[in-house]
Amino acid sequence: MNISITKTAAPKQKPDQSHLGFGIHFTDHMFIMDYTEGKGWHDARIVPYGPMAVDPSAMALHYGQAIFEGLKAYRTANGEILLFRPEKNMQRVNNSNRLLCIPEINVDDCVQAIKELVKVDAYWIPSAPGTSLYIRPFIFASEPALGVRPAHSYQFVIILSPVGAYYKEGINPVKIYVESNYVRAVRGGLGEAKTVANYAASLKAQVEAKEQGYTQVLWLDGVEKKYVEEVGTMNVFFKINGEVVTPALTGTILPGITRMSTIELLKKAGVPVSERKITIQEIYDAHAAGKLEEAFGTGTAAVISPIGEFSWNGNVIKVNDGKIGEVSQRVYDTITGIQSGELEDTFGWIQKL
Amino acid sequence: MNISITKTAAPKQKPDQSHLGFGIHFTDHMFIMDYTEGKGWHDARIVPYGPMAVDPSAMALHYGQAIFEGLKAYRTANGEILLFRPEKNMQRVNNSNRLLCIPEINVDDCVQAIKELVKVDAYWIPSAPGTSLYIRPFIFASEPALGVRPAHSYQFVIILSPVGAYYKEGINPVKIYVESNYVRAVRGGLGEAKTVANYAASLKAQVEAKEQGYTQVLWLDGVEKKYVEEVGTMNVFFKINGEVVTPALTGTILPGITRMSTIELLKKAGVPVSERKITIQEIYDAHAAGKLEEAFGTGTAAVISPIGEFSWNGNVIKVNDGKIGEVSQRVYDTITGIQSGELEDTFGWIQKL
Ligand SMILES: Cc1ncc(COP(=O)(O)O)c(C=O)c1O
Ligand SMILES: Cc1ncc(COP(=O)(O)O)c(C=O)c1O
Repeated sequence: MNISITKTAAPKQKPDQSHLGFGIHFTDHMFIMDYTEGKGWHDARIVPYGPMAVDPSAMALHYGQAIFEGLKAYRTANGEILLFRPEKNMQRVNNSNRLLCIPEINVDDCVQAIKELVKVDAYWIPSAPGTSLYIRPFIFASEPALGVRPAHSYQFVIILSPVGAYYKEGINPVKIYVESNYVRAVRGGLGEAKTVANYAASLKAQVEAKEQGYTQVLWLDGVEKKYVEEVGTMNVFFKINGEVVTPALTGTILPGITRMSTIELLKKAGVPVSERKITIQEIYDAHAAGKLEEAFGTGTAAVISPIGEFSWNGNVIKVNDGKIGEVSQRVYDTITGIQSGELEDTFGWIQKL
Repeated sequence: MNISITKTAAPKQKPDQSHLGFGIHFTDHMFIMDYTEGKGWHDARIVPYGPMAVDPSAMALHYGQAIFEGLKAYRTANGEILLFRPEKNMQRVNNSNRLLCIPEINVDDCVQAIKELVKVDAYWIPSAPGTSLYIRPFIFASEPALGVRPAHSYQFVIILSPVGAYYKEGINPVKIYVESNYVRAVRGGLGEAKTVANYAASLKAQVEAKEQGYTQVLWLDGVEKKYVEEVGTMNVFFKINGEVVTPALTGTILPGITRMSTIELLKKAGVPVSERKITIQEIYDAHAAGKLEEAFGTGTAAVISPIGEFSWNGNVIKVNDGKIGEVSQRVYDTITGIQSGELEDTFGWIQKL
């Protein structure tokens, strides 16, 4: 794919590297590519970061025909730039696209686009431990027309945001509210796509959980409110009596890339791991029997987020005395070690720029 | 509310009035108002219609925090301009806002905004029978930041589109596919909000139904796939053995304003009408017993859309020999008569400009 590059004439000042936060600062450039029916994806270009001219009738603003991705670029101690399984994110774009009736992209072209853009803005990749460059590809229906149907034109955009370390003061287990009222996604819906609808559906539950002192909600299935699904922007894992379990991919949850990597890693390390249906009652029973050894979320932002407490219909349980567990720690160390280039990548997960 | 007005220096050519279609053409101006945390809604303005400068990280494009409305302005035979229950739409905005964690609007201010904008672009309101000016208010999260949470800034926008007559060649009953696989919205989700998520979730089902020769899908509840919900962008009514029934508002369907008006009208006319749970099996049973007399959808676009055929898991039934029923016709004639100013408005539904 041929990508034209227009460099900014007015580079921005880089933000204070010790207060980056998440998704607040954006780099100097962005990637854009257009889709027009009959013409396909075209006009791949890197241009200065800035507001886009969006028609007020652009279909994405009305009918939510839009999907996104999230991955990171890491700077190693010796200055190399690494990407973690970017092809998996671009394959997931196409899964999301199919569910949203958005035309598919070429995975290799889009990985190339990420690489080119990260190279142009390489100067923005922070280097302090735990920091990274968050990469946000997204596609939205740009056709200016009203009426519910798949659009005839789209834009694929990639923006970059330098982000701070997720754990500044050591890994702190989070408190999770088990949601019995609101539903994020249901069988037959869009749960397995990374699409705007699922996040819109999560806002109110999240706000209410925060008000009660919880970091995130754990979603239950929308039909029986019985089976564990996922946590906010993370997949969820439990260690019960020596075995690691995680909900199977049945169509209502996002197939996380950190989830996939965690499973591969545990299997290679000989830790028993199974993907299956898990009821929330089973988790509470395991806890009562003294067999709930660990619980953690997996996702690009935090990699591993140990869970120290669940609250379900007023019943609170503590996991592992509110401390990070041994498997959680090991998975965290291994994945972040590979991402930062400190550990050898024996999985073939890393792409160097 | 003080609305500043900036008129366009380059008015567009009005499109061919006999080929308006729906949502294709937009008028010369639009209304915009901003929300900033701490400051509330401010800077109400009418400006030339055109692309908006949207940051690529605008939260609506990523997390679907956006809602919309749809209503119409009608031109009467003697040149007056009428709005149909605009305050109901603006009240519904606030229902949608609450579910999406969007700050509420002032209903009266927003009705005023609609009126001012329609006045500025009054020249665009078509006058042929059945034509109208479609009004699309919408709100989207404009804050440039990534991370799933309610935004701190929003834009409220109103755009206008002259639209053609829905029924050009007489009222033609539609064929409806009863959807047993995909789910639009579920209990605990966003079904009763007019928000992007619900429409995104409907695209694939709609495309597949179209491919099989059906106009729209009839949604069933997401839990048991048993109860009738609504049709595409319409609420649904059945006449069974002399009684009109429609699904109750239990949180998963849009509380349609045409639905509300239809119920009020039927009650006033002494037709028995009940809002309750209805299984799809009941509809098929009523048909088998020769008691399914009519079926129709209600919505702003078509007002009344008679349904001539259902297909459910391969079983096809025809309603009223594929012709519009007597009640459907009466409701259609009354509501469109009031909207066009040909019938006296004994309900207090009309606001004159
Ligand atoms: C809903 C949801 N589930 C799970 C994940 C974790 O996926 P990944 O490991 O690919 O980041 C994310 C975040 O990306 C998410 O948004
Ligand atoms: C999902 C849905 N249901 C029902 C309706 C009908 O609502 P109203 O009568 O207010 O137009 C609409 C359209 O507006 C809709 O989008």
